[in-house]
Amino acid sequence: MKQYIKVDGWNIIEEGFVPHYNKISESIFSLGNGRMGQRANFEEAYSGETLQGNYVAGVYYPDKTRVGWWKNGYPEYFAKVLNAANWIGIDIRIDNEMLDLHTAQVNDFRRVLNMQEGYLQRSFTATIPDGKQVRVVATRFCSIVDDETGVIRYSITPLNFDGTLQVTAYIDGDVKNQDANYDEKFWDEVNAGVEGNSAYLTLRTKKTGFEVCTGMQFHVHQDGKPLQPGVTPVRKEKYVGGTTTIAISRNQETIIYKYAANLSSENHAVAALVNNCETTVSKAAAKGFDIMLAEQAAAWALKWKESDIVIEGDPAAQQGIRFNIFQLNQTYTGEDARLNIGPKGFTGEKYGGSTYWDTEAYCIPFYLATAEPQVARNLLIYRYKQLGKAIENAAKLGFNNGAALYPMVTMNGEECHNEWEITFEEIHRNAAIAFAIFNYIRYTGDEAYLAEYGLEVLIGIARFWAQRVNWSDARKQYVMLGVTGPNEYENNVNNNWYTSTMATWCLQYAMEGLQHVKATAPERYAAILQETAFEAGKETEKWQHIVDNMYYPVDEQLGIFLQQDGYLDKEQILVKDLDPAQRPLNQKWSWDRILRSCYIKQADVLQGLYFLEDRYDTDTLRRNFDFYEPRTVHESSLSPCVHAILAAKLGDEQRAHEFYLRTSRLDLDDYNNDTEDGLHITSMAGTWMSVVEGFAGMRVRDGQLQFTPFLPGKWQSFAFNIRFRGRVLKIKVSQQAVNIENGSAADITVLVYGEPVHVPAGKMVTTKQGNLVN
Amino acid sequence: MKQYIKVDGWNIIEEGFVPHYNKISESIFSLGNGRMGQRANFEEAYSGETLQGNYVAGVYYPDKTRVGWWKNGYPEYFAKVLNAANWIGIDIRIDNEMLDLHTAQVNDFRRVLNMQEGYLQRSFTATIPDGKQVRVVATRFCSIVDDETGVIRYSITPLNFDGTLQVTAYIDGDVKNQDANYDEKFWDEVNAGVEGNSAYLTLRTKKTGFEVCTGMQFHVHQDGKPLQPGVTPVRKEKYVGGTTTIAISRNQETIIYKYAANLSSENHAVAALVNNCETTVSKAAAKGFDIMLAEQAAAWALKWKESDIVIEGDPAAQQGIRFNIFQLNQTYTGEDARLNIGPKGFTGEKYGGSTYWDTEAYCIPFYLATAEPQVARNLLIYRYKQLGKAIENAAKLGFNNGAALYPMVTMNGEECHNEWEITFEEIHRNAAIAFAIFNYIRYTGDEAYLAEYGLEVLIGIARFWAQRVNWSDARKQYVMLGVTGPNEYENNVNNNWYTSTMATWCLQYAMEGLQHVKATAPERYAAILQETAFEAGKETEKWQHIVDNMYYPVDEQLGIFLQQDGYLDKEQILVKDLDPAQRPLNQKWSWDRILRSCYIKQADVLQGLYFLEDRYDTDTLRRNFDFYEPRTVHESSLSPCVHAILAAKLGDEQRAHEFYLRTSRLDLDDYNNDTEDGLHITSMAGTWMSVVEGFAGMRVRDGQLQFTPFLPGKWQSFAFNIRFRGRVLKIKVSQQAVNIENGSAADITVLVYGEPVHVPAGKMVTTKQGNLVN
Repeated sequence: MKQYIKVDGWNIIEEGFVPHYNKISESIFSLGNGRMGQRANFEEAYSGETLQGNYVAGVYYPDKTRVGWWKNGYPEYFAKVLNAANWIGIDIRIDNEMLDLHTAQVNDFRRVLNMQEGYLQRSFTATIPDGKQVRVVATRFCSIVDDETGVIRYSITPLNFDGTLQVTAYIDGDVKNQDANYDEKFWDEVNAGVEGNSAYLTLRTKKTGFEVCTGMQFHVHQDGKPLQPGVTPVRKEKYVGGTTTIAISRNQETIIYKYAANLSSENHAVAALVNNCETTVSKAAAKGFDIMLAEQAAAWALKWKESDIVIEGDPAAQQGIRFNIFQLNQTYTGEDARLNIGPKGFTGEKYGGSTYWDTEAYCIPFYLATAEPQVARNLLIYRYKQLGKAIENAAKLGFNNGAALYPMVTMNGEECHNEWEITFEEIHRNAAIAFAIFNYIRYTGDEAYLAEYGLEVLIGIARFWAQRVNWSDARKQYVMLGVTGPNEYENNVNNNWYTSTMATWCLQYAMEGLQHVKATAPERYAAILQETAFEAGKETEKWQHIVDNMYYPVDEQLGIFLQQDGYLDKEQILVKDLDPAQRPLNQKWSWDRILRSCYIKQADVLQGLYFLEDRYDTDTLRRNFDFYEPRTVHESSLSPCVHAILAAKLGDEQRAHEFYLRTSRLDLDDYNNDTEDGLHITSMAGTWMSVVEGFAGMRVRDGQLQFTPFLPGKWQSFAFNIRFRGRVLKIKVSQQAVNIENGSAADITVLVYGEPVHVPAGKMVTTKQGNLVN
Repeated sequence: MKQYIKVDGWNIIEEGFVPHYNKISESIFSLGNGRMGQRANFEEAYSGETLQGNYVAGVYYPDKTRVGWWKNGYPEYFAKVLNAANWIGIDIRIDNEMLDLHTAQVNDFRRVLNMQEGYLQRSFTATIPDGKQVRVVATRFCSIVDDETGVIRYSITPLNFDGTLQVTAYIDGDVKNQDANYDEKFWDEVNAGVEGNSAYLTLRTKKTGFEVCTGMQFHVHQDGKPLQPGVTPVRKEKYVGGTTTIAISRNQETIIYKYAANLSSENHAVAALVNNCETTVSKAAAKGFDIMLAEQAAAWALKWKESDIVIEGDPAAQQGIRFNIFQLNQTYTGEDARLNIGPKGFTGEKYGGSTYWDTEAYCIPFYLATAEPQVARNLLIYRYKQLGKAIENAAKLGFNNGAALYPMVTMNGEECHNEWEITFEEIHRNAAIAFAIFNYIRYTGDEAYLAEYGLEVLIGIARFWAQRVNWSDARKQYVMLGVTGPNEYENNVNNNWYTSTMATWCLQYAMEGLQHVKATAPERYAAILQETAFEAGKETEKWQHIVDNMYYPVDEQLGIFLQQDGYLDKEQILVKDLDPAQRPLNQKWSWDRILRSCYIKQADVLQGLYFLEDRYDTDTLRRNFDFYEPRTVHESSLSPCVHAILAAKLGDEQRAHEFYLRTSRLDLDDYNNDTEDGLHITSMAGTWMSVVEGFAGMRVRDGQLQFTPFLPGKWQSFAFNIRFRGRVLKIKVSQQAVNIENGSAADITVLVYGEPVHVPAGKMVTTKQGNLVN
């Protein structure tokens, strides 16, 4: 855990240059706009420790699987987020000496991520080895208005000399993924050009054949006016640039503006790529840095209006939650149904793939509540479009008749992961995809989605579960053997309660979906039945038989659901009684020891009690929470949020707050010592859930919004914005009151502590805080 | 399955050159002498498909682990059998054209492995592209008399031309392991020399620093007389050779004798390697090919006298069993306690490592019965010497107080394998090592072994088991969670009956061992207690408590031991009811489907009933056999032998024979389509067990040899030799009689069908065959 980031409400601030922290900061200060993104690398050369990273959404490479021992069914390839051309590069030579913060003496270093306006600014004074001193202020952003465009304003001022400044602005496509399995490079050059202050470079991915054209233009200003210096082209393999040399005087500011664009063949005809890229760059240059930055700030203001959480009385918590929201919004905008939310977003390349069950389980609630329904809907349609691949994926494992198994990790719908206990057995992911459909409809009321897209997915998923269980002659019940639940510290177990429970829930929900579509869209129903060759009577009978005869492990005496068969055979030493030197287990214990232990990596039974909370009474929840929580080590960043929400529900506000604290500043404080690899993007949504579903107790039941808020810790108040069925609400929870402001044109009635509160259009209503404890 | 090998009692014969089979034949015709070995590659150049393989016992390389996803506790390295310098190479140029069977037209090709005398002979007529025809007869062997030496007699005769013959005899050390994880080469050159017709090359392994000096001398003879042609040295990196050119005339035979030696720093001081190597080569050359071959034949005759099995009435079975015995004797001679029996011997490099539990479970019985006790004893001492590493290995996994976990795969005692479900969980291997001590003492009567070596190993193993079980509060019994039994088609199961049963057997045997040593060697006992810091009362009390309170899964209704918890929850479709198109499962099914199924890869519960047979009555055996056999797919070559022995015990002679047939010609007929990777050396011992323990029903009980033979299939008789406590017996089972011949100087009384039969020294006794069925 490190705490070098300065606390501030709207900014992430690093002061002083600590090379050892550079890779961490490169992650934390990352920029993105949903379409492209990058780590906070330096524009000028840097020979110190760095992970250079530029990423273009939807562009991936199927890296040949690396595995110790092959298991039948493994995918041949692991689709990886691709490290793409570096467009930020500006080499600075001062009287022919390279500016490089690794060799210079650096003072007054300050890096600021302005989350309110969406830009990164870095300033420093550098003394290069020959004693010359310059002041640099570099500002850049990936535009969320022109989302193929990124711009840089690089200001440099000599402090103690007159001399020459040589600037080389370039695009470098000779990049390699740090995590390449066989140390290969994934890009080939297609074409390139340099003309004056402009250049472009088109690269094509090996195997997948994606083309990305990266273009740039640079302009040099002095004394507020553009110069027109001569530019010498620089051309190497997968590299284009231009060099210009100008005179600089002491205290005279030179500004280099660099306008760049990344255009992908996913969005442009290959033949038009270069032309469109040049046009995009030229438009940006014509608009100019200042206007673009103003537009950026305005666009971010709109985003914040929808998604901000304001916390009074706890500046670190304020910064943490805003950082999470900022990064989520940088990662996914919901505008393109082909995209999804990678676990590292655009901040690193670890784990590859773009899509995990994290999206459905943790991210959907955030986007549902903070953006237009279309955003979450696009995440659902992403899976709908991959239904065919999910059916192929299941077929590879021996399932048939249209059974669908969604992959554990994917880019294009094909499974990418290769650990048998995960790839083949952590199948509960399939249920999360069905649950997301339910959750989306529950929240938005968009029941038409079922007929349009949802039902087909539900049928495929239900078919999978119906084949995946088997009848046990010994038990005279259906069982589900050989699974890995959400708690990955158990592998290949029998009858994981969560998985079995969610499986039958899927079967029931699919049957409800069938009834609903039959009743509301009979023609579409007939079409779906035909398309899926669905045998309505026979298949649903089987499903119902499974629902009626499924085995779920329980312990009657303890009154709890058992995580899986045999869980109580384990040695039951609680986490609090573990020697702290033994933790984190995933670093201190061998894998078999972890597996044999009773310790739970992340919410498992409790995840089920969270998803299906209306099924279980509070006593049941409490017994299970009291049993499982003391055995949970939360060694997944996705775990504490569920515990926070459940603790809040059980009225244990202090612990709810404690769970929240475990993830709210996970990356800012480098809690797990792994931020340098990239940020934990998907768990950021879990932090948001802790606040909104936990502290504010937000739920949707029968189409109605409900809140049961409390104020955690030393907070004086917290406020968040919610979109709900055409309304835009701002909920503010303070010591004595819950204020609900209805910023939309239609009235709404919500429940606060179970009491209906009518909030007229355009009005704010204050409710007394009987239940607020502090 | 292929059947291109000609049936013959003493020879393995291939007739006609089928390039597609070459890699298979390279495995089948492999040579070895316990110290070194090689695949049956060609002496002359060959540009077709081949796996060049030369191996030196005990010389390995720790190849960096390759794994998809790291698990805590994995070893950093996988020790690999090293592909070493090729010493057989003789390039042949005829009028400057290379002789290469890939480009020549080949006639009358014949490859013979003479098992009786221990040599390989290959003969053919080749027409090279320019039409010149030569007849070649190449004979070679690895001497079991001078076990660092290999020799070649390469005869070549022009059939239709006069011309020149250019011979390059060489040693090529620029070799690579086919299975290198990162495509690296593992050898560095240390020194090399070429002088006249002699050359040497010393290579050192990277990381491990083993040095191997390979030397050679070659001599050219014509008309029965040595020539003294000039030799041009050839020297490249990791390559030494000499070239000589001579005139050859139509029908004039030229013979090239090549004498080579492999000397390893394991057996020679590094400083003396080159000198000793040159001496060894010179001695071989002085002795000459013919004398060495005669010595080889004589030495093999002795081996056969001890280990041969003669089958009358079934030539294919005769060839199969002799081939197995021959390869076992080529692989391990028992002369060096640092060596062990690799799964592929010297015939390939797949699986790496030299030592698996195969040695203790399958090979020990073969060597016990067919060689001096010292041979099996050396295999035991091998493990004794690695006890320290086994304790380290257990410590890495969190065990303490001298608990020992022997590795799944090893070269030097360190674990080499990296699949968590095997490396960390297939811990039953530990019991096999204890059982081998029991088995050795049972067979040889060498009870002093316990005090000398055995007890320390038993203590370490018992300590492991005592820590590996845990008390289940739920069951009020000890349980053993998270193991993989011998049936590797189940992973990470709880309470595998075999593992739990063998674990408590180990505890009991260790306690008996303690008592025995205390009573028979009190000083040694005290020393061992001190050395192991053994707390006699406390530790054995705990062991006894575990023995008394261990949980073993059973099904009372079926009257069977349950392979593991939950086994009966599986869908119980018998193997016979499986669509044959689905088999072998390991090629047709995804791994998770295999794991979920009831199908058993290799004997598991039945392995326990085999090891501990005196504990269980025949009815118990029958119920378990009848339950498990129909669920066993025998997709391990180590499985059928156990079923054969048990079927024989149950009187089901036909099935016993069927099980035997599954492995007796496994490699000769390339049954599993994988012989090209190397031979299944350890399963060959299982085949021997099927005959001796199965068909002949040999057992040792209370120090007495017992037989309950029958004649399988169409066999007219079978006979085998047994060493037993100083006696050398030949047992022949024919239609009407069991003959027992006592070739030693002391009488013996054995039981035949439970009746004592006294066999005086030097005599043969014939017993009537009441129980023989045919």
